[in-house]
Amino acid sequence: MATDRPAQMGMIGLGRMGANLVRRLIRDGHQCVVYDVNKDAVRDLEREGAVGAGSLVDFVAKLTRPRAVWLMLPAGVVGSTVNELAELLDQDDVVIDGGNSYYRDDIPRATQLARRGLRYVDCGTSGGVWGLERGYCLMIGGEDEVVRRLDPIFASIAPGTDSAAPTPGRTRDGTAPHGYLHCGPNGAGHFVKMVHNGIEYGMMAAIAEGLSIIKSANVGKQERTVDAETAPLRDPDAYGYDIDVTEVAEVWRRGSVVGSWLIDLCADALARSPELTDFTGRVSDSGEGRWTVHAAIDESVPAPVITAALHERFESRGLGYFGDQLLSAMRSEFGGHQETKG
Amino acid sequence: MATDRPAQMGMIGLGRMGANLVRRLIRDGHQCVVYDVNKDAVRDLEREGAVGAGSLVDFVAKLTRPRAVWLMLPAGVVGSTVNELAELLDQDDVVIDGGNSYYRDDIPRATQLARRGLRYVDCGTSGGVWGLERGYCLMIGGEDEVVRRLDPIFASIAPGTDSAAPTPGRTRDGTAPHGYLHCGPNGAGHFVKMVHNGIEYGMMAAIAEGLSIIKSANVGKQERTVDAETAPLRDPDAYGYDIDVTEVAEVWRRGSVVGSWLIDLCADALARSPELTDFTGRVSDSGEGRWTVHAAIDESVPAPVITAALHERFESRGLGYFGDQLLSAMRSEFGGHQETKG
Amino acid sequence: MATDRPAQMGMIGLGRMGANLVRRLIRDGHQCVVYDVNKDAVRDLEREGAVGAGSLVDFVAKLTRPRAVWLMLPAGVVGSTVNELAELLDQDDVVIDGGNSYYRDDIPRATQLARRGLRYVDCGTSGGVWGLERGYCLMIGGEDEVVRRLDPIFASIAPGTDSAAPTPGRTRDGTAPHGYLHCGPNGAGHFVKMVHNGIEYGMMAAIAEGLSIIKSANVGKQERTVDAETAPLRDPDAYGYDIDVTEVAEVWRRGSVVGSWLIDLCADALARSPELTDFTGRVSDSGEGRWTVHAAIDESVPAPVITAALHERFESRGLGYFGDQLLSAMRSEFGGHQETKG
Amino acid sequence: MATDRPAQMGMIGLGRMGANLVRRLIRDGHQCVVYDVNKDAVRDLEREGAVGAGSLVDFVAKLTRPRAVWLMLPAGVVGSTVNELAELLDQDDVVIDGGNSYYRDDIPRATQLARRGLRYVDCGTSGGVWGLERGYCLMIGGEDEVVRRLDPIFASIAPGTDSAAPTPGRTRDGTAPHGYLHCGPNGAGHFVKMVHNGIEYGMMAAIAEGLSIIKSANVGKQERTVDAETAPLRDPDAYGYDIDVTEVAEVWRRGSVVGSWLIDLCADALARSPELTDFTGRVSDSGEGRWTVHAAIDESVPAPVITAALHERFESRGLGYFGDQLLSAMRSEFGGHQETKG
Repeated sequence: MATDRPAQMGMIGLGRMGANLVRRLIRDGHQCVVYDVNKDAVRDLEREGAVGAGSLVDFVAKLTRPRAVWLMLPAGVVGSTVNELAELLDQDDVVIDGGNSYYRDDIPRATQLARRGLRYVDCGTSGGVWGLERGYCLMIGGEDEVVRRLDPIFASIAPGTDSAAPTPGRTRDGTAPHGYLHCGPNGAGHFVKMVHNGIEYGMMAAIAEGLSIIKSANVGKQERTVDAETAPLRDPDAYGYDIDVTEVAEVWRRGSVVGSWLIDLCADALARSPELTDFTGRVSDSGEGRWTVHAAIDESVPAPVITAALHERFESRGLGYFGDQLLSAMRSEFGGHQETKG
Repeated sequence: MATDRPAQMGMIGLGRMGANLVRRLIRDGHQCVVYDVNKDAVRDLEREGAVGAGSLVDFVAKLTRPRAVWLMLPAGVVGSTVNELAELLDQDDVVIDGGNSYYRDDIPRATQLARRGLRYVDCGTSGGVWGLERGYCLMIGGEDEVVRRLDPIFASIAPGTDSAAPTPGRTRDGTAPHGYLHCGPNGAGHFVKMVHNGIEYGMMAAIAEGLSIIKSANVGKQERTVDAETAPLRDPDAYGYDIDVTEVAEVWRRGSVVGSWLIDLCADALARSPELTDFTGRVSDSGEGRWTVHAAIDESVPAPVITAALHERFESRGLGYFGDQLLSAMRSEFGGHQETKG
Repeated sequence: MATDRPAQMGMIGLGRMGANLVRRLIRDGHQCVVYDVNKDAVRDLEREGAVGAGSLVDFVAKLTRPRAVWLMLPAGVVGSTVNELAELLDQDDVVIDGGNSYYRDDIPRATQLARRGLRYVDCGTSGGVWGLERGYCLMIGGEDEVVRRLDPIFASIAPGTDSAAPTPGRTRDGTAPHGYLHCGPNGAGHFVKMVHNGIEYGMMAAIAEGLSIIKSANVGKQERTVDAETAPLRDPDAYGYDIDVTEVAEVWRRGSVVGSWLIDLCADALARSPELTDFTGRVSDSGEGRWTVHAAIDESVPAPVITAALHERFESRGLGYFGDQLLSAMRSEFGGHQETKG
Repeated sequence: MATDRPAQMGMIGLGRMGANLVRRLIRDGHQCVVYDVNKDAVRDLEREGAVGAGSLVDFVAKLTRPRAVWLMLPAGVVGSTVNELAELLDQDDVVIDGGNSYYRDDIPRATQLARRGLRYVDCGTSGGVWGLERGYCLMIGGEDEVVRRLDPIFASIAPGTDSAAPTPGRTRDGTAPHGYLHCGPNGAGHFVKMVHNGIEYGMMAAIAEGLSIIKSANVGKQERTVDAETAPLRDPDAYGYDIDVTEVAEVWRRGSVVGSWLIDLCADALARSPELTDFTGRVSDSGEGRWTVHAAIDESVPAPVITAALHERFESRGLGYFGDQLLSAMRSEFGGHQETKG
């Protein structure tokens, strides 16, 4: 549960997300020591009240024991940074990995740190560029004692109870309604965050598919090639609608079953650029979707929707090209079929 | 745009949704004439200020020309009710179908009514049992003039601008930020509502799959049959988490990217019944998902996620049984494989 | 059952498939009257023993009553040709549609012909460009009496019993082991052919995906961008294989569970062009896959695999572009994510 | 390339597949030393000309150096058997794993054996219970020299060139047309076999879905519940066919594009038991499908069809139950919807 005790936090990695975490902590009266290889980022936060550090050694020196060090770094450099820190920290200090690390790396990392008497917390952090204002949803893995110790920090970063109406059927206590949750031992936080992102893939894909179907509701008015290689549209009269998807996304923000933050963001993106001309449609994936599918398969839990969303992203980047060529080649072999040019 | 002119509306079909539409209208000072084959439903709304009607003839007589008649009926009886009404209504009266009719039925229906000088509006209505309080998201199809005429009615039923923060990038006017949208000519409203429900299928499935993956994060601690028919779990240590999905759904309500009304509802359902013991997992589908996939295919728009969600519902009802038997039969034929018993 | 009675058949549509059907019939001693708008095609078959016709009227005149007329035409012109023929034919003559018409068109077509005393048979014909040599698999819909009357024709076109080893468990008689089957009343033939093609989509996709996975078994040896937008490959050492997919397709032709005509064709296509340079990977679809999915949905039969194969074809033609842009736009909105360029 | 030199092979694991491999080798004049914990299995093969061994020590003693030992064992016991053998074998002896081991285990296994001067070959073996007669398709991984040494063995086990017509476009030499292929270094054989089985999943699913759609072509004649929870069938007249799927599978065996060994097996299974009453539809999966999807994801190769087939198997075993309950719970929450009972 959120408390009011001011605490201290060290932050390594002052990208947009790390910097905004610091700002939320400062706002709530916590002290923040900050470090980044980018000196400007350190200076900016100093101006907002943080204590800047010029080196890792300096950073560690400025923190009070037992120290709390939050890493907000790309997954690729977390390991080396943890190793460096491990040399500098003291008994009972805690390292929090707030990035999108693979949960399977958490257990060996925690074990490695424990050997030196250090504590480790994995903390999935959702909220993106909007978190400064909205707060961040935190999914936490680690030992009870150390997670409890960090409670004032988590409480300040999380959105807080008022950010959504209470769940009517809920009778339990706990921090979840405040926007942060101790999910289990090390790895559990990143596990939940991983699946969170997998769900995100599925929800995003459902929305994108649906708005595409609405955008194409006018295909009956378009010329369509008529040849043996193209299925004719049987009922062109049923597809004569020019529907404004920007307005559709906007109207769904209020009162509809699909109302969601992702719909809010679609409405915003389409309002800014109705034809989305800035985007080439090559959709990245940064690991969590893959890991989610891997977990589903290991657990024998059917997850066709999340998986389809992942494969759709691969397709968007043209990665199905050889397979598609092979399909055309087979069609040519058995039927003398030509490829569609259009 | 919402206006304050009080108007009059006739409502046929006083189930939960129809009755709540009437209540929202009455609250805003509109006059409502109501009719249902269930006399109790009529009486209940009379007590709340509606004008009850004892028959369709009576209902029509109590409305002022040009009349506005809203149907909130199961798709199966809309057609016959429209036919009956067509005999009783006068030039320029309007019939609004607020149910989940197939959009392809709207065009012939509108044409049939137009022949008698009557107007038709199709209005997809989202909001379910919560609409009384939250308002209903309205997706409207019909002629400009008649939709404009009904504006005060739509404005009262919709959630209103205050129900969500403004979209930052938005500069346009229009009714969408109020929660209702004139999507296009007849059929466009139900088309958008159909796809809305298709998206709903996909989002629900993504959430359900994800929470299932989290619930099964402890499979590494369970005994697993080891035989030639069952894939062994290679890394049982990676699946040792007992994570409370009720709390996970709750924490995602605040600040996360997957935050949505559906997550709110999951949190509520799980808070009331963590093991969901009231549900057998046979998931119904009432048409819109199927129609959405049909539209996607007609339009050649890839929609693998929404489609996978639809097939998952079929599977949930055991409808893949023969195919599954055939898979087992093939495995037995080529490999002498036995079926898994467990 | 195949019989030896020589019969007569009129063929309209002398494309590769129609011409080869005629050749198989002539080989078996049947008389063939042939017609096509392309005079050269007629002349070519005259040289091989067919009776050419210069017009539809001439064609009909050269056939003996009760006439048998086989149409091997693009779906788009079947309707008009049937209408013309209906004016010229006599009581009890039969029209056979051997093309890929939608089965739903068969019932009205049969009814329309029946009004004039004419008979109609729908005949799904599989075999493509190889049918001359292999014979064609025939899936037939129509009345018992008229299908029986055409038995010598079907028997000559079909591959015949010797084209595959007998099914060990089979004890029944019937024509299926000969390669042709009376599936049911009108429409049943094209229904079975439609689903046959749906299965074809799924099988082709499975093969194409699998060979792509094998072709990419060397990704661990390639440079991979390392940034926050790209999931790193965790185990590059596990992907160090340069495997020759041409040879893999060839080896699977013998003794493997996936042995199939489609694998034979893959092996051939890859042998001719290992990098498939002639193909751009824009995979056509000519209707049957769409109709199969539509039928599955109407019947509530889960068909995720066939459906995924259909959507994959849409993707191959770039039809998911707007949806992909929208995914990138959402990612940009919530996380400031950039698109992958590569 | 196949040669006629008689060779010697030791076989450990005399289940159906191991025993049949031995029989094919004996038929071709090779000498076989055989061992199994089941003494009866040893005795049976002794009667057919094999040299039986009573213990691993005895087995090794009866083989001539450099020994060739083929393991045909469940994946779970391969590791321990290799360890035992490693103690007994001598420099340059070779161990062949012919089972469905995960290819990732091959590299460490080969390394471990190489430390003792032993050689390792991974050999994916397809053919199931029919291989005695048809021969086995072999996908081989290992060093060139040792694979070449085993050529006479592979040539006798494989189906041989005559088992299929030559690929018309093929001009290369090599063993693939004989039914065995050296795919690459250690792991490459099991990698190709893994993907082979992934394709098998997809092909099987496509066939099972398609035949299910045909079997349900009569749903228009069945009573269908009409309530708000069930989508009505719009065109019951289009689903009035009672089609015999047994005959359909049989007819597709000849001349059709879907012709394949799996269709042959379906035809056989349905001929024996048209309603497949022996099968409960709980479809096992023994690892290769999962590994294939894992590889596809690691490689970023879209594989929606193979993946859908895998998830379908999970569904068949009821593993989507919690997710389905959650879908019903959400529907109940937002719409007061009841579950379908039927």
